[in-house]
Amino acid sequence: MTLSEIAELVRAEVAPEALESTVSITRGASLDDAQPGDIVFYDNPRYLRALRETKASAALVPRDFNESVSVAVLRLENPSNAFTAVLQKLLPPAVPYAAGIHPSAVIGSGVNIHPTASIQPQAVIEDGVTVGARTVIGALSFIGRNSSIGADVLIHPSVVLRDDTVIGDRVIIHSGTVIGADGFGFKLVKGKHEKVPQVGNVQIDDDVEIGACTTIDRARFGRTWIQTGSKIDNLVQIAHNVVIGPHCLIVAQTGISGSSRLGRYVTLAGQVGVVGHVEIGDEVVVAAKSGVSKDTPPRQQLMGMFGIPMKEARELVAHYHRLPKTVGKLKMLEAEVAALRKIVEAQNGQDTTLNVS
Amino acid sequence: MTLSEIAELVRAEVAPEALESTVSITRGASLDDAQPGDIVFYDNPRYLRALRETKASAALVPRDFNESVSVAVLRLENPSNAFTAVLQKLLPPAVPYAAGIHPSAVIGSGVNIHPTASIQPQAVIEDGVTVGARTVIGALSFIGRNSSIGADVLIHPSVVLRDDTVIGDRVIIHSGTVIGADGFGFKLVKGKHEKVPQVGNVQIDDDVEIGACTTIDRARFGRTWIQTGSKIDNLVQIAHNVVIGPHCLIVAQTGISGSSRLGRYVTLAGQVGVVGHVEIGDEVVVAAKSGVSKDTPPRQQLMGMFGIPMKEARELVAHYHRLPKTVGKLKMLEAEVAALRKIVEAQNGQDTTLNVS
Amino acid sequence: MTLSEIAELVRAEVAPEALESTVSITRGASLDDAQPGDIVFYDNPRYLRALRETKASAALVPRDFNESVSVAVLRLENPSNAFTAVLQKLLPPAVPYAAGIHPSAVIGSGVNIHPTASIQPQAVIEDGVTVGARTVIGALSFIGRNSSIGADVLIHPSVVLRDDTVIGDRVIIHSGTVIGADGFGFKLVKGKHEKVPQVGNVQIDDDVEIGACTTIDRARFGRTWIQTGSKIDNLVQIAHNVVIGPHCLIVAQTGISGSSRLGRYVTLAGQVGVVGHVEIGDEVVVAAKSGVSKDTPPRQQLMGMFGIPMKEARELVAHYHRLPKTVGKLKMLEAEVAALRKIVEAQNGQDTTLNVS
Repeated sequence: MTLSEIAELVRAEVAPEALESTVSITRGASLDDAQPGDIVFYDNPRYLRALRETKASAALVPRDFNESVSVAVLRLENPSNAFTAVLQKLLPPAVPYAAGIHPSAVIGSGVNIHPTASIQPQAVIEDGVTVGARTVIGALSFIGRNSSIGADVLIHPSVVLRDDTVIGDRVIIHSGTVIGADGFGFKLVKGKHEKVPQVGNVQIDDDVEIGACTTIDRARFGRTWIQTGSKIDNLVQIAHNVVIGPHCLIVAQTGISGSSRLGRYVTLAGQVGVVGHVEIGDEVVVAAKSGVSKDTPPRQQLMGMFGIPMKEARELVAHYHRLPKTVGKLKMLEAEVAALRKIVEAQNGQDTTLNVS
Repeated sequence: MTLSEIAELVRAEVAPEALESTVSITRGASLDDAQPGDIVFYDNPRYLRALRETKASAALVPRDFNESVSVAVLRLENPSNAFTAVLQKLLPPAVPYAAGIHPSAVIGSGVNIHPTASIQPQAVIEDGVTVGARTVIGALSFIGRNSSIGADVLIHPSVVLRDDTVIGDRVIIHSGTVIGADGFGFKLVKGKHEKVPQVGNVQIDDDVEIGACTTIDRARFGRTWIQTGSKIDNLVQIAHNVVIGPHCLIVAQTGISGSSRLGRYVTLAGQVGVVGHVEIGDEVVVAAKSGVSKDTPPRQQLMGMFGIPMKEARELVAHYHRLPKTVGKLKMLEAEVAALRKIVEAQNGQDTTLNVS
Repeated sequence: MTLSEIAELVRAEVAPEALESTVSITRGASLDDAQPGDIVFYDNPRYLRALRETKASAALVPRDFNESVSVAVLRLENPSNAFTAVLQKLLPPAVPYAAGIHPSAVIGSGVNIHPTASIQPQAVIEDGVTVGARTVIGALSFIGRNSSIGADVLIHPSVVLRDDTVIGDRVIIHSGTVIGADGFGFKLVKGKHEKVPQVGNVQIDDDVEIGACTTIDRARFGRTWIQTGSKIDNLVQIAHNVVIGPHCLIVAQTGISGSSRLGRYVTLAGQVGVVGHVEIGDEVVVAAKSGVSKDTPPRQQLMGMFGIPMKEARELVAHYHRLPKTVGKLKMLEAEVAALRKIVEAQNGQDTTLNVS
């Protein structure tokens, strides 16, 4: 694409001389990696130096950008979104997976696979499974008995869906993820942990995306349920009977314990832990590495090991970091009081400390 | 089942009119999801409202339950256990896996697979492996050279056991789990991390259950060892040469570093971290997200980043949360002392602060 | 091997009578597990009792070891390294994987597999893949379109490399690991999280080792990049566009958020979290369970939720653990000041607290 084609696509302002450039932009790249012929974007002042040094031929920058740089700049509202649009124009379309069942796949009986679906090599599909239109079951993936998968679903290689899993439309599941393993439930009987049967299932609604090596356990009974449009990152643990409401974001390495429920548009940042049997209200945001151990009203922002409101949590952290000063002040004050006491005692002819209980 | 059949099965008290009900209970469900014909259980007051609103036809409740609800209630000692018993009666028996080796499985030489064992599709079993009676090797699982697996073991799809792994009887291993990968051992030689050979193995004793996407590394030498009856959740990391004693519970996303040893009946809650080379005594309980960095005597309950006794840890947390008040008091006191000093100085005609070292 | 052969191999000092021993050492073992005929090593006083009680026939010990023990000791500089050398001599060489493509593997078109490479059972290799000399692609592994894998690489069973992944020479990747899944990127458009295309790739340089069930996401554009000689443990999350410099150590269950960059020889201990878009300088060390939320200059040692210098962090922890005492002192002081005030008021005939603002 020429610069003027790009400027038209993303509605950018460009210096007139750039519009006449005959340079051909063929690839999007990061500031550091870019070569002549690449386009980059810039929307964070911390990367200004990288922008100055980039070898790219063009850069998408914010409308109010006014630094002098050698790369040709295209000014517009949202450089990151515009970059995505340019990438989509530049990239060859992803190779589609051919419809049909690869001969190496193993297919059970009583399955209902749409003729436009693609079952990739070495996949295993057990009895009674339904697969919808244009859905791709990745190589080496396993779909357990009586699972039902909607249309336009993309299951990447090496995913496991255990029996009775229900998947909506347009769901994406990345490699290594296991859906429907048994919940962690035991009762102690005569000194042994006896298994509590886990006979529920997992339901994933439309437009959910689930990262790699994430585990979502089947319900003890009923269902573990991920509702429409929620996005789950890698290495997340979701225990039995958890309910994730619509449009939540669950960042990597977070764990949610059994039977807890999230409302709509909840964000849990990375490495968060949620105890069992709590309710987290709509639009709650929990900072990275925090713990949530009780019910949380809507629109709270929580932080810290005990999940308290973010403003309080930050204040506590500031106090924590000032502890050496605080203790120093206390020591000064102790010395001062001791000195005062001496003077007062001298004036008074008696030991005032005797009055202290 | 009728209510009177259920009442007999779980020895519940039921109101006489309920016993005559002809309703047919066909499914167990959660309070929220239940439909007419379902049975639910209730043992936690936080779900009272859900119980009032459930559409279920029957509910198992504690013996002392005395709220007025519209659903028919069956009173008994332990509603959760009774619910499990009812579920087991209602559910169709799990489809057994047929004995024999699926033609798509790849089997090495010198293997010894019991005729009642089931080797599922696309499994790979390397040379010299032994598989016991009635054991199931899940689809797409890999069993490395010279591994030995006992009787009645259930290995779910997509499990990896690397070479020389030893598995006892009645062990359950969930999908995505990797047993016997190399421990993380390197030594720095001339600026490079040189690999320390990891030539030991992993031994899993009888009645152990291991969750999904958990990693248990092989020993540097000797064995990494999970002893009888211990239960390990999802996404847990167990490093080389760790020993987990009998009947421990290790909750999701916990990590145990190299050569540490747990006694009997130890519980590590979720996201706990244990450093290397420590011993944790029998019946120790560690709260979620805590760290353990030193040897711990039996029956301690630990909490916090530095794994201190739970009572002290809670006290510290309370102090932490009161820091703003404490600092406020300190400031008040400083002002008060300053005021006192002024008066005393006026009385005394001298600057007492000179006396403070 | 005889003791004198071992002593010669590792240049150890041995008592003359041991050199004449005809005992045959056949195996390396841990102190606890050892049997007659085994050799062990000892380099940590906490295991002295285990050394006294070991049934091993020989022990490698530090040169200055002077306890009296019943096992024959060989004194030398570095018992752990020497033990590795002995193990390598004692162990039968690992069975090599035969060159060639197993008939059950599924190979795409346009692939370039070196004749000395070994493609194990049930592996899936998509179109356009290159595999170098002596490289092993483990059973049930998946190599996505147009990926390129160097020479002498060992990919264990059940690994997933998504399309366009680039792997250098002598790389080791353990089972369950997923390289090149989509980064976690969404933008909120009319109440829905719309997927931001992730069209970059992952590049892994020479001599990198990656543990089990680790996830390394493909770049949004450009590359996620693990540089030469770095070692990554199990269950680690590396987000899109992260750059790990050469010779880093990333311990288990650590997570690094998008676009962050590590310098050379950085060590992140277990369960560390790094936020996005930060730079961590050369030789930085971060303690287990810590968080890093800002740029970090070289050679810092960080600890704690907010990643502060280790010395300060330890001081804060000490203050934290003394909070009950500090608060106790404050209360004492308040009582003492109150007592003083009473006396001064009595002397003065006025309420001094009125002077406190």
